[in-house]
Amino acid sequence: QGTRDHPPAQAALRERLLRTVVSCFKRHGAAAIDTPALELRETLMGKYGEDTKLIYELQDQGGELLALRYDLTVPFARYLAMNKVNNMKRYHVAKVYRRDNPATTRGRYREFYQCDFDIAGQFDPMIPDAECLKIVHEILSDLQLGDFVIKVNDRRILNGVFAVCGVPESKFITACSTVDKLDKVPWEEVRSEMVGEKGLSPEAADRIGEYVQLHGGLDLIERLLQDPKLSQNKLAKEGLGDMKLLFEYLTLFGITGKISFDLSLARGLDYYTGVIFEAVLLQQENEHVEELVGVGSVAGGGRYDGLVGMFDPKGRKVPCVGVSIGIERIFSILEQRLKASGEKLRTTETQVLVATPQKHLLAARLKLISELWDAGIKAEMLYKKDPKLLKQLQYCEDTGIPLAAIVGEQELADGVVKLRDVSTRQEV
Amino acid sequence: QGTRDHPPAQAALRERLLRTVVSCFKRHGAAAIDTPALELRETLMGKYGEDTKLIYELQDQGGELLALRYDLTVPFARYLAMNKVNNMKRYHVAKVYRRDNPATTRGRYREFYQCDFDIAGQFDPMIPDAECLKIVHEILSDLQLGDFVIKVNDRRILNGVFAVCGVPESKFITACSTVDKLDKVPWEEVRSEMVGEKGLSPEAADRIGEYVQLHGGLDLIERLLQDPKLSQNKLAKEGLGDMKLLFEYLTLFGITGKISFDLSLARGLDYYTGVIFEAVLLQQENEHVEELVGVGSVAGGGRYDGLVGMFDPKGRKVPCVGVSIGIERIFSILEQRLKASGEKLRTTETQVLVATPQKHLLAARLKLISELWDAGIKAEMLYKKDPKLLKQLQYCEDTGIPLAAIVGEQELADGVVKLRDVSTRQEV
Repeated sequence: QGTRDHPPAQAALRERLLRTVVSCFKRHGAAAIDTPALELRETLMGKYGEDTKLIYELQDQGGELLALRYDLTVPFARYLAMNKVNNMKRYHVAKVYRRDNPATTRGRYREFYQCDFDIAGQFDPMIPDAECLKIVHEILSDLQLGDFVIKVNDRRILNGVFAVCGVPESKFITACSTVDKLDKVPWEEVRSEMVGEKGLSPEAADRIGEYVQLHGGLDLIERLLQDPKLSQNKLAKEGLGDMKLLFEYLTLFGITGKISFDLSLARGLDYYTGVIFEAVLLQQENEHVEELVGVGSVAGGGRYDGLVGMFDPKGRKVPCVGVSIGIERIFSILEQRLKASGEKLRTTETQVLVATPQKHLLAARLKLISELWDAGIKAEMLYKKDPKLLKQLQYCEDTGIPLAAIVGEQELADGVVKLRDVSTRQEV
Repeated sequence: QGTRDHPPAQAALRERLLRTVVSCFKRHGAAAIDTPALELRETLMGKYGEDTKLIYELQDQGGELLALRYDLTVPFARYLAMNKVNNMKRYHVAKVYRRDNPATTRGRYREFYQCDFDIAGQFDPMIPDAECLKIVHEILSDLQLGDFVIKVNDRRILNGVFAVCGVPESKFITACSTVDKLDKVPWEEVRSEMVGEKGLSPEAADRIGEYVQLHGGLDLIERLLQDPKLSQNKLAKEGLGDMKLLFEYLTLFGITGKISFDLSLARGLDYYTGVIFEAVLLQQENEHVEELVGVGSVAGGGRYDGLVGMFDPKGRKVPCVGVSIGIERIFSILEQRLKASGEKLRTTETQVLVATPQKHLLAARLKLISELWDAGIKAEMLYKKDPKLLKQLQYCEDTGIPLAAIVGEQELADGVVKLRDVSTRQEV
């Protein structure tokens, strides 16, 4: 349940998608690492808040207590701490596991790929953060997924907002998770959850509402930096100062057109400490693909400066910022788009089929195909002693093989091979 | 225990190795598939003989009872049966899991990659089987691992030998596993295990010994086809006839020089029904790499015509033959060879570092690098506002970046970029 086989057509589409994503990561100088799918259970516990219950645990068959990784971020932090790495720009493409109730039509599964890019190390502020946003912009543009917007916020600004609105610090995280729902439900509902379930005062909720419904660009940042209350809060001021710097860098990258500073963005995970961001596709009229898949987040990430320290015996901190590309959601969109277009994706790369027009020529085929393989040419033949020529050409058409190399009695006698272009039927 | 992180240098080497293997699979027209790492526990049970105890089981957290896959062959057979596929040439590169006692120095782990190529379908005899051997030959040659031999045998021949030597059919499988040890221990020990632990008569053991110590080529096949006892056994005769055909095809492929028909080859797994084979590297004098890793099997496979039927509700059979490349063993060899050579593998593909020679030029660097990324050029910069030029060039040397694109005040004024070849120090 919640897992699936990928037949060749899907595997080929996935390979094409991953190639685009990984080549962007490599364009930005990232190195690959690989970590086990199994982690010690204790490594994963206490990192995912409420979602800890979704972790798959292995049976205790003696030895260490193990679990399947829930994401690639915690294993990365564990890797950095364990290997005492202070600086690293890495990408990692691998499967992660969650005992979620799968909504497979929306591209949610219990086993799915994550594609992560992270920059670890102590650097001048906002330069790596800006690069992460540039990467999201490049990938979504390269994949031609249609219009999108990248929402940006900062946990420090959110915490500052909560503080100046009179929320006690112990309720920051829970308030965060309520604010995060603003992209799906109207403010009134969020407000009533704050007051009802979360126990905030109606006045505090109203004050929060004035802030978290704001979104804009550099102008909004400037305005909030002048805000009489917010500008008095140390965290918020720091966050807003960095946000301004971020927008400066994004302007130099030429991508502010797709960036929205959005105070309602909160993101679920506990470990973020600074900038957070999320890319969403915008609904396109007349495109029925979107209806099926649903629009929504296709990439997200942020800064987590405290996570590595949790795994280091001396609490040594390594600041990190990173992005995760929502490859499964994107895959569903591409898959449905491909289906709608009627285009047939080849599942193999075979360049030529070695064929014979008469019987008793298996030896000739085996000799020729062996020469082709040894020359690095992608070649196939039918596994029959005496296949009909028509069947062989049909196989080319079915699987998209462009050429047939034909050896018949005449060709053998002449010491030549007849090369046939399958689509034009031209022969040389 | 028994798992490991791959830091960038190892991940890069692994990527290079897998690229060689996968491009061979693609050269032979294989399509990729992907299956979950999780399988239903019942799918895996009863497929691996004694080694069933090595299967990792997931904790029962409600819902289906799951286990981690033990190899890629059983999931492939399950895939074929479930999707009613009758014909398929596929490859699959993925991690598998075994609760083994890891001997990590010999390249054995609890989580490791397998690289499998299999051909499923009803075809004329021995053509796909010959292609599997050709693939092993190509990959081991492409990887330049040194001299090797591919041992070939057939389960039907082995069973025929046991039958004519007076072994009861119920003891065929256990006799097989004893014979399989002949590559590691002398015949005397194998014989005493047969008589002692396995309860065969000394006479039967001696008769078996006369056969299983034989190895050779076409001449040996011909001789056994004339063998008064063996030629009377239906299974053995079938197996020998097919072996002869196989050698014919391998002769056309030009690879019989590295093939040895070896009656001691038995292979552990229960599911083989016909041809079996195993490639071993030959000890090379003066190469201390081999001492550490140990020589041994680097690829193996065979025909399993009954496995798919075990997963089909109607028992519908799909004959299969396939090969698994022992990528971990090969990886260990390449790794130690690389270490011995002193060669440093680049872990990134960055083509150019964007650098500045003076202060206050971060904006110029950000603008230039953004242009480079948008043009598809792999570029990096240091995440510092004002890095020293020497530090920037040092970074190029450390990470193997061949070029530095330098923008200073003069270049900005002139509207140019200075391009520096890091190794020759030439500038344009």
